[in-house]
Amino acid sequence: MAMSSLAEKVVAGDVRSVARLIRDIDDGITEVREVLKDLYPHTGNAYVVGITGSPGVGKSTLVDQMVAHLRERGKTVGVLAVDPTSPFSGGAILGDRVRMQRHSMDQGVFIRSLATRGHFGGLTQSTRSAIDVLDAMGKDYILVETVGVGQDEVDVVRSAHTTVIVVVPGMGDDIQAIKAGILEVGDIFVINKADREGTDKTLSDLRLMIEMDQKKYDEGGWKPPILKVEAVFDKGVAEFIDEIDRHARYLVDSGIGLHFRSNQERVRQELAEMVKGRLIEEVLNTLTDTGDFDRAVESITEGNTDPYTACDQLVLPTIRHSKESRD
Amino acid sequence: MAMSSLAEKVVAGDVRSVARLIRDIDDGITEVREVLKDLYPHTGNAYVVGITGSPGVGKSTLVDQMVAHLRERGKTVGVLAVDPTSPFSGGAILGDRVRMQRHSMDQGVFIRSLATRGHFGGLTQSTRSAIDVLDAMGKDYILVETVGVGQDEVDVVRSAHTTVIVVVPGMGDDIQAIKAGILEVGDIFVINKADREGTDKTLSDLRLMIEMDQKKYDEGGWKPPILKVEAVFDKGVAEFIDEIDRHARYLVDSGIGLHFRSNQERVRQELAEMVKGRLIEEVLNTLTDTGDFDRAVESITEGNTDPYTACDQLVLPTIRHSKESRD
Repeated sequence: MAMSSLAEKVVAGDVRSVARLIRDIDDGITEVREVLKDLYPHTGNAYVVGITGSPGVGKSTLVDQMVAHLRERGKTVGVLAVDPTSPFSGGAILGDRVRMQRHSMDQGVFIRSLATRGHFGGLTQSTRSAIDVLDAMGKDYILVETVGVGQDEVDVVRSAHTTVIVVVPGMGDDIQAIKAGILEVGDIFVINKADREGTDKTLSDLRLMIEMDQKKYDEGGWKPPILKVEAVFDKGVAEFIDEIDRHARYLVDSGIGLHFRSNQERVRQELAEMVKGRLIEEVLNTLTDTGDFDRAVESITEGNTDPYTACDQLVLPTIRHSKESRD
Repeated sequence: MAMSSLAEKVVAGDVRSVARLIRDIDDGITEVREVLKDLYPHTGNAYVVGITGSPGVGKSTLVDQMVAHLRERGKTVGVLAVDPTSPFSGGAILGDRVRMQRHSMDQGVFIRSLATRGHFGGLTQSTRSAIDVLDAMGKDYILVETVGVGQDEVDVVRSAHTTVIVVVPGMGDDIQAIKAGILEVGDIFVINKADREGTDKTLSDLRLMIEMDQKKYDEGGWKPPILKVEAVFDKGVAEFIDEIDRHARYLVDSGIGLHFRSNQERVRQELAEMVKGRLIEEVLNTLTDTGDFDRAVESITEGNTDPYTACDQLVLPTIRHSKESRD
């Protein structure tokens, strides 16, 4: 079958097939599911690093340096940019984009951006599927760059083995924002542009927050290190990669392991999201095809019903039948 | 019925009932739907203003001043904080929280925060429902404060008549981020902390972006004004409120109108989201109750199947029956 042959090419590392498959995932082409099923047995070997932080903290420069270091260490690397402000995904100025191109001729590096936000399955599902593809393709490391605010981003980084939070000095308010949502998912903190004023203050603020969980570390939990980096001058990047390696060893030694699809909680989350996306896709498509959805919209705009009642009338018949069939 | 009596109390403006209902919405209590159906005929009278921007730009201070001005003009005000960094929703420092309390004894002001992110219906749906409640309660203005990054926030502000984007001088990168997602939804731009260095640069950057749509304005579209404000000193706030009024008149004069639930596109979006949330809730609950979901998780973690196949097996039976029932 055509599908299996595409999967075979991906596993063989064919760049053109991988690019096509990731584009199809991003476009929400439903047929990719069959290819992903075929690829699944070939996944679970890559080490996934999530890199997140506010716009302007220099995530892409850091990712660019990480790629260079990992390549020097003989590792192959995949990069996924799901950050609308990233030069990888076309959000930033030309200079950045040119800088990235130093890896463009390297067969050991594969860089792609994901833009999907509006599709039913959502960005998280697209990202997970794209990670599977790069994993099956044989990349040793997969770096996923996201902009660090919002539930979407938190969900995306849950797919990573190591999550890196990047900040810059003097962003007091932003540390507050990090605190509110994303601190608990950070395995490593990087203070980038660490030549700037305010680095020590940012360092002590972060340290204070991290040490609030001291009890967890005393019981053998991972204590997130804070690293000073100047990505643009390649200062501190090697040490940063060493810390990622140290975290990987921690995951193995602590029994958490590297194969997340043997981890009940992660599988539960991933499957729930997949089911959600799939449900919405199937049912909304049907409601649209039959014209039921349009009729409901009309009925609301004409003032004949309210959206809450219309929703009941659209959804409940679908559900009731599925429940009855179980009895 | 108890439900109807709760709806009656909300319409009568009973603060305790409103507070309870909004808390139930935030907690994802499904029974609130019946109350929302009863309230629906009483909605459509409030003017909804969305205020969004990065953490630290002073959104809450601005909202606080807006409340004071609107009260002086004899208007009642509801405030919904869906921003994890807002002092209204408990994200920020004590000083801010105390400052807000100047409205706490004013019967014409009702302030609540929404925290829900994990529930099936999602933050957007919770916010829309909470807006309905404050609307039915009889508030003239409803101010919705969100942190301005991510699809969630864009969806939330779609519920507003006027969307305000707040920036501060010298955030070049952030303007880039705004550009990437949220510029197109801004009806008014506020440069807060306009005593700071870099105000003129920010002003001209914004102006440049806005003028890229010059053709739209030439055809009678709304051209977003840019206002310099120092919210903490109450400078420029009155003029800002005047601009909101001017935008409201534009909506009426242009034929767009103020009653969004007679607007096809808005109703379509809202209903689609409501259907999604409802579907997920009903089906995932059933799959959880029957144990099918847990068995699928186990099967994946034991390596007997892949998540894509498991998802098919969970979802397809539900859907197939609903399709068959239509034939």
